[in-house]
Amino acid sequence: LKLEYLFPTGSFKDRGASLLISKVGELGIKEVVEDSSGNAAAAIAAYCAASRITCHIYVPEATSFGKLTQIRMYGARLVKVPGSREDTARAAFEAAEQTYYASHYWNPFFFQGTKTFAFEIWEQLGWEVPHNLIIPVGHGTLLLGAYLGFQELEASGMIKKIPRIFAVQSENCCPLFRIFHEGLTYLPQIAKKESLAEGIGIARPLRWKQIIEAVKSSGGTFLKVSEEEIVSSLRELSQQGFFLEPTSAAAPAALGKLINRGLIHSSEVTVVPLTGTGLKVADKIASNILDPSGKY
Amino acid sequence: LKLEYLFPTGSFKDRGASLLISKVGELGIKEVVEDSSGNAAAAIAAYCAASRITCHIYVPEATSFGKLTQIRMYGARLVKVPGSREDTARAAFEAAEQTYYASHYWNPFFFQGTKTFAFEIWEQLGWEVPHNLIIPVGHGTLLLGAYLGFQELEASGMIKKIPRIFAVQSENCCPLFRIFHEGLTYLPQIAKKESLAEGIGIARPLRWKQIIEAVKSSGGTFLKVSEEEIVSSLRELSQQGFFLEPTSAAAPAALGKLINRGLIHSSEVTVVPLTGTGLKVADKIASNILDPSGKY
Repeated sequence: LKLEYLFPTGSFKDRGASLLISKVGELGIKEVVEDSSGNAAAAIAAYCAASRITCHIYVPEATSFGKLTQIRMYGARLVKVPGSREDTARAAFEAAEQTYYASHYWNPFFFQGTKTFAFEIWEQLGWEVPHNLIIPVGHGTLLLGAYLGFQELEASGMIKKIPRIFAVQSENCCPLFRIFHEGLTYLPQIAKKESLAEGIGIARPLRWKQIIEAVKSSGGTFLKVSEEEIVSSLRELSQQGFFLEPTSAAAPAALGKLINRGLIHSSEVTVVPLTGTGLKVADKIASNILDPSGKY
Repeated sequence: LKLEYLFPTGSFKDRGASLLISKVGELGIKEVVEDSSGNAAAAIAAYCAASRITCHIYVPEATSFGKLTQIRMYGARLVKVPGSREDTARAAFEAAEQTYYASHYWNPFFFQGTKTFAFEIWEQLGWEVPHNLIIPVGHGTLLLGAYLGFQELEASGMIKKIPRIFAVQSENCCPLFRIFHEGLTYLPQIAKKESLAEGIGIARPLRWKQIIEAVKSSGGTFLKVSEEEIVSSLRELSQQGFFLEPTSAAAPAALGKLINRGLIHSSEVTVVPLTGTGLKVADKIASNILDPSGKY
């Protein structure tokens, strides 16, 4: 387990945001637009605050209260968009015509930041590559960053082989899983259902071809996990002392499946990131996962 | 600024809790009691979860929602006590007669954990001692830990001098400030008012004599900060990219005062811990600090 939720803003998105906003500052840009389900927005807003860059954040109306409060305190201009995650993306995209789009999935500099995930794993394992990575995937910001990082290590001759990448989606929103297993050559229209894993609830991932290609060429595969599996994994992790947002529980939930199916051996080194803190989504956790009687 | 809120449970209390609960485990104890305004409780609950120790947590009814959710998810038995912080302490103290009191202010092992704060500062400054520390103080778990750590470094000949310790209380609850400045030899009865700095709202600090003695012998003093000063410091820190709980803003709020009064020179090295994350108290921040219209 790699504790990616211990970054200053509470998720791995600090990796990408710190690099992207440093670049934005270097270019002399004073105002940016971003849209996100919450974590990327919080990270972009924080690094913009630190760099005195005005930041307009578009989020879906249903975004967790903790994330909204955090974004507002960083001084960002928050725009709540009614409707789906995709409606939010459209609104931000239009706004971005007037300014700079500091998007965590459009902007390539974001991935240059998340690739540090690969370098850090390599360093922390004593300059060795793990056999497997299990990564939750929506727009693929962590997955593509990790792939890029390991590719660079391979190209420079520092490592011999890229780890196998197992990509995890929520059963309620799994376009990439379908493309991979049904052999589709297009992005399917899916009827997305609400999922507690809000961070990966992306019906139309922009870089779907790159994500599929990365997983395929690494020798990995795609898995999907149900809401029940996410909840049960989240509970179990909490009761081991890790308080996480539900999205973070998707990848650990897949680990057992991979071992059961013989795709991963327990003797292998497998890295599973825990991507975001539960403190951001206390409202959703309390109402969906804890005993609502509030007895304790 | 030292970012103590980046510990796994979101506050510096992990320093004490990890050591205390390791000791509890070593002693073969299977069940403990703790009371706290929230951060210490969350830390104790998390390390108990990791060690499979049953944990009963007593908190005041007014404790922030994020903290309560976190504590419940760790699997702790949560008891909300109506009334004051002191009523909570009494209830826990009674319960502790039947079990082990893993208290962050009674149990000396907790301070053995928080003393790592001193060692880490010394290491991070390249084995140098800062001139000053500014620390928010309620029960003094961080302050006494820091003092203990620097004392040990001095006793072992590793450093020549302990930094001056400036202790900060909230104007709405400042018994230690009064003892120090009025030269009292007893703990005064104070009419405690609500403060956003819930982490230091302690009317009857157990180790008041030790705290006074530590600050005095270090050559420091006590300060108090108003609610307005806390809020304005909190806003300013957020807009630099630090999202904190209000308690964390008390010490930075005191820094300007100390410089203005000539007690600290800007050429000196001064360390100010940021003790807890704002994500735990999003509810209080949203209702007390942000524009309630929720316009953004």
